[in-house]
Amino acid sequence: MSGRTARRRVLRISLPGDGRPGGIAARADLLAAEEPLGIRVDGAALTMTMRTPGDDVELAAGFLVSEAVVRSPGDISEIKLCDGTACGHADHDGLGNIADVTLAAGITVAPSARRNFLTTSACGVCGKASIRDICVLPHAALAGDASSFAPAMLASLPGRLREAQRVFSSTGGLHAAGLFGADGDLIAVREDVGRHNAVDKVVGWALVDGRLPLSGCVLLVSGRASFELVQKAVLAGIPLLAAVSAPSSLAVELAEEAGLTLVGFLRGPSMNVYTGAHRIAGAG
Amino acid sequence: MSGRTARRRVLRISLPGDGRPGGIAARADLLAAEEPLGIRVDGAALTMTMRTPGDDVELAAGFLVSEAVVRSPGDISEIKLCDGTACGHADHDGLGNIADVTLAAGITVAPSARRNFLTTSACGVCGKASIRDICVLPHAALAGDASSFAPAMLASLPGRLREAQRVFSSTGGLHAAGLFGADGDLIAVREDVGRHNAVDKVVGWALVDGRLPLSGCVLLVSGRASFELVQKAVLAGIPLLAAVSAPSSLAVELAEEAGLTLVGFLRGPSMNVYTGAHRIAGAG
Repeated sequence: MSGRTARRRVLRISLPGDGRPGGIAARADLLAAEEPLGIRVDGAALTMTMRTPGDDVELAAGFLVSEAVVRSPGDISEIKLCDGTACGHADHDGLGNIADVTLAAGITVAPSARRNFLTTSACGVCGKASIRDICVLPHAALAGDASSFAPAMLASLPGRLREAQRVFSSTGGLHAAGLFGADGDLIAVREDVGRHNAVDKVVGWALVDGRLPLSGCVLLVSGRASFELVQKAVLAGIPLLAAVSAPSSLAVELAEEAGLTLVGFLRGPSMNVYTGAHRIAGAG
Repeated sequence: MSGRTARRRVLRISLPGDGRPGGIAARADLLAAEEPLGIRVDGAALTMTMRTPGDDVELAAGFLVSEAVVRSPGDISEIKLCDGTACGHADHDGLGNIADVTLAAGITVAPSARRNFLTTSACGVCGKASIRDICVLPHAALAGDASSFAPAMLASLPGRLREAQRVFSSTGGLHAAGLFGADGDLIAVREDVGRHNAVDKVVGWALVDGRLPLSGCVLLVSGRASFELVQKAVLAGIPLLAAVSAPSSLAVELAEEAGLTLVGFLRGPSMNVYTGAHRIAGAG
């Protein structure tokens, strides 16, 4: 497995102005590592993602939760990492790592879990791949979750997430996903060049640790809240997804349909509650 | 086609503190629209992307440039948008738009251009999908581009991009890609919930307008510079890719290999030059 950061030489250029002289200086810079991870399931390639190396077993496990393939640790028989060495293909520069998943007996990958849309199309006439095809959410999946969260606790989470990010401060290039308890205690944090991967790593860790569904928990993401992240939160049983930045329209629609509480622009002393306000103490 | 923004009711919660009373207020909020676009080529579904509606023909065209399927306007015979109405499937909530591409005679989609990795694997033994498989860049593609760019011009671009973003100020949720000339004049700007889509829209516009390759131009992206964005810039013939935030390690590696000038952390009066410094006036 390669490192999470890579050191590169960089020219730092500063323009003169406001009394500053300006100048050019060479220096070493830490970059967030980005490499492909292929996920194979029962011998067949399922998908490939560009990710920051690290927690790859959890990434593969979380991806399978997010695609509604597995729900409990027992659904997975084994996840092995292959770096190309074992199969005599070490000449690939160490890139192209593979997570090789063996599912438990009786667990299979449904066509809807496959990320490609080459061969599937809900609308046979025009080839339309509609929301219904890509969304694997059960309707009102979280409706029964009666968790309640205090605004002051939520407002404290971005600071706690930043504190927990070991890599971000050095590279500036990583998204983070943090899992918190209802009291605001940090349960797990993972980082990645891809927001969806950071969430998959958290969810995969929870799966392997026997913690799914994550009732009563908050998932905080450092960037925007997209459709995809809402789906991942719901499938992990997380009742509240909070984002430092904006949600998309589809994220809000799906959150509403699934019964997820969606909080956006969680910055400083304020936040926007888009759906599920009944779980926000004092706001329902 | 749906709108680029969606209006939603949101609860804005402010905590008390520093003399502020705090409170909860309902208000209308504009969200960046996110909807799936399926891209079909010669009758077969090629890929699907979650995008902000708008410029969908250009998005499809730019995607095909980025996947090295087409290089000139003549490579595409026609791009039609299908919203489901024409084929009697208007019951899909207007979601799931399709861009239906017909390539010119003799132009075909190579297997390597297909975004899924279900059936392709470079390494037959372990199923490894290596960088070589997903990278469609010709080696040193931009080595012959002798453009030169002034640091002061580059430093002015983020401000020009922000000025040009009509939607960002209202939703806070959109990535932008701006194409600039060597003098810093704005040529085109596109926005999307996905960074890669914003770039595809710019490149697709340039293709349709007969401007490829984009020699002497700068592409500025509002977020990070990933592997994927470097690939898109190179295939469009753009010699300089600048990002407001950090590049990934793989973005830097591929930029170096392709001969692209890669600038990161382009903020305020300073910037980092990761590769191709010979194109930065005074830094080479």
